[in-house]
Amino acid sequence: MALIVQKFGGTSVGNSDRLKHVAKRVAQTKLDGHDVVVTVSAMGKTTNGLVSLMAEISNNPSPRELDMLLSTGEQVSVALLAQALQELGVPALSLTGWQAGIMTEPVHGNAPILRIDATRVRELLDQGFVVVLAGFQGVSESGAITTLGRGGSDTTAVAYAAALKADFCDIYTDVDGVYTADPRVVPEARMHDEISYDEMLELASLGAKVLHPRSVEYAKHVNLFLRVRSSFNLGTGTVIKGVDQLEKRNPVSGVAADLNQAKLAILSVPDQPGTAALLFSALAEAHIDVDMIIQSVQGESTNDIAFTVAESDLMRAKSVVYDIAQKIGASGVISDADIAKVSIVGAGMINHPGTAATMFSALAEAGINIQMISTSEIKVSCVIERSRAQDAAQAIHRAFALDQEIVPTFA
Amino acid sequence: MALIVQKFGGTSVGNSDRLKHVAKRVAQTKLDGHDVVVTVSAMGKTTNGLVSLMAEISNNPSPRELDMLLSTGEQVSVALLAQALQELGVPALSLTGWQAGIMTEPVHGNAPILRIDATRVRELLDQGFVVVLAGFQGVSESGAITTLGRGGSDTTAVAYAAALKADFCDIYTDVDGVYTADPRVVPEARMHDEISYDEMLELASLGAKVLHPRSVEYAKHVNLFLRVRSSFNLGTGTVIKGVDQLEKRNPVSGVAADLNQAKLAILSVPDQPGTAALLFSALAEAHIDVDMIIQSVQGESTNDIAFTVAESDLMRAKSVVYDIAQKIGASGVISDADIAKVSIVGAGMINHPGTAATMFSALAEAGINIQMISTSEIKVSCVIERSRAQDAAQAIHRAFALDQEIVPTFA
Repeated sequence: MALIVQKFGGTSVGNSDRLKHVAKRVAQTKLDGHDVVVTVSAMGKTTNGLVSLMAEISNNPSPRELDMLLSTGEQVSVALLAQALQELGVPALSLTGWQAGIMTEPVHGNAPILRIDATRVRELLDQGFVVVLAGFQGVSESGAITTLGRGGSDTTAVAYAAALKADFCDIYTDVDGVYTADPRVVPEARMHDEISYDEMLELASLGAKVLHPRSVEYAKHVNLFLRVRSSFNLGTGTVIKGVDQLEKRNPVSGVAADLNQAKLAILSVPDQPGTAALLFSALAEAHIDVDMIIQSVQGESTNDIAFTVAESDLMRAKSVVYDIAQKIGASGVISDADIAKVSIVGAGMINHPGTAATMFSALAEAGINIQMISTSEIKVSCVIERSRAQDAAQAIHRAFALDQEIVPTFA
Repeated sequence: MALIVQKFGGTSVGNSDRLKHVAKRVAQTKLDGHDVVVTVSAMGKTTNGLVSLMAEISNNPSPRELDMLLSTGEQVSVALLAQALQELGVPALSLTGWQAGIMTEPVHGNAPILRIDATRVRELLDQGFVVVLAGFQGVSESGAITTLGRGGSDTTAVAYAAALKADFCDIYTDVDGVYTADPRVVPEARMHDEISYDEMLELASLGAKVLHPRSVEYAKHVNLFLRVRSSFNLGTGTVIKGVDQLEKRNPVSGVAADLNQAKLAILSVPDQPGTAALLFSALAEAHIDVDMIIQSVQGESTNDIAFTVAESDLMRAKSVVYDIAQKIGASGVISDADIAKVSIVGAGMINHPGTAATMFSALAEAGINIQMISTSEIKVSCVIERSRAQDAAQAIHRAFALDQEIVPTFA
């Protein structure tokens, strides 16, 4: 008998039929002899509906009142799911964030969890109940309802699983598990049985929208086994665990293509201390996240600084960069939204120095020009022309034979 | 400067425009220098929508999960109203039932309030906030969300006003105040400036749907001034207060017609102790509310027992009554849904013994036959044929000259 925390997202509980289907999945886990805590998000488009309601009242609502409003979405889901479980003869009880003792910082819209008092939930589990726990929400010391921000229901599941020392935290989603690439981009993509936290983190930040990075980081921190599984079939999914716990370390575990990137470069920057700090502080102040940064020495006394931002931030980033360019006497600014970032991720890469070269060769053979390169211990990213992103992902996937069950060793 | 608790119903906050209108009313009260706590119901049809959602899951939902679900309706309203007040520059904060310290019995669907811990609300009022309080909901000692049942938002307003020792509890509704009769039935009906708790109670239970009886009883118990006012105009409405505090005691303050009644009679009941107890216990066990009860001696050893129930309960009541009739050897059962109950109410009636006679004469002159009569200290009710209800109400209204500003004394 295991203690399992399950999480179902908004699409999985989009209407009453889907909700009943989720109830059956949960009931089966209980029937198999496990203790179950199940976390759900708001139903389908509920949150958007609530946001629209608030938009009719205010263009700039108070974060506190927005949290008060949005937290009702999950409260509706848990009441309905607890009832659906009861209809199947499974004793079940719903709890809001505050009822489940999820204490957060007194911050609205993106509150970090401070601690979890799981007393009530443990009591209910001991009494044989399935606990249906509202995702995405908590309560501050002073009793204000807070929400946990993007990926909040994943965070609830992972944090609660850690608090209960659960055996598994199962994240049910609309994909079967974590793949070597997006199957829509690379049809031969293969599902992983297991993958490390760090690989998952790199894949998540690269646009593999399976899990929110915050949840993965937290699970890594407390060494909790995460399972990504499909809401719609009975597959075993992908287990995410520590790199030491993996049966084998993949040199390359996945290929990701991110099309929502844009490139900016500031040219002939006088080579003085503090220039980069000035530029990136100004961007941070404007709340613009910078991804890749490359500084190349151009001559004896000037540099080019190139970097990428989310395409949606490009206009704002340009205006910040033009200001700085004038101040520091740069020769010009160029920007390009017609790019994509293609990356490979693998925990075993560090021991295989030829990995990056294999990637570059694959791109060259496909006639794809590399505009920028950035590497970390478990990742290599290349900026290329956007129209070639799919070709690039497929060529790289083939080059590393990621469609093969047994991944060979390179270099 | 006064401390005022205001309550706005679901129609008053039916959409964002109405909600903004309510915000303006509340803001004006605050601007006039008063401290304000405002209670709101769920927006328009929200509660029905939530009930339908649950109906897709279960025919017989757990009262606990239903409360969990329904309480979200008011939580949505308070977040939006607090925001709408902030848009007008009024500092405002929303609170759920549990955040406002509304402690109830651990009963779901119809929880009586045990006590109110108003500490947080007092703090907020002292800091200059308008407190926007979710109606209809509370929390049990063990932390379960409860709802207060029908008229629950009125109950919240009145109970909170009592806890805060507020100067007034203003119930905003879609009528201007309390009338001498329903203006749709009796066009000459006149609004009262003031009326006693007991008169209001009788009128409420007679189908004047202005205030829920529970709220009026509670206000009477704690001697709280209630004001019934219109959400849509600036009228002063009707003040409901103790009979000793009235400037004048009306012999008759109102005429009410209730069309949702049905009559049952059980004939030639053997005159034995316990027969009535048997009958009415069986009806109570079936959760059927009985209104008028009349027992008339027919012969030396048998009685007829006649009573009225809500028309919607008639079928169930009949089946209970047939069973009992067989058991006790009554000669038969008759039922009639084609009736109406017309009543007069007045705190001064007790000192005017001719009041009932005036009512009976008015009905006789209009050619309306009286089927049953029941009287209390401040009320006389007659059961008549349903099709004559409006004629009856108008005739009685005229007979007592209720359209006159100064009500003359009768008999």
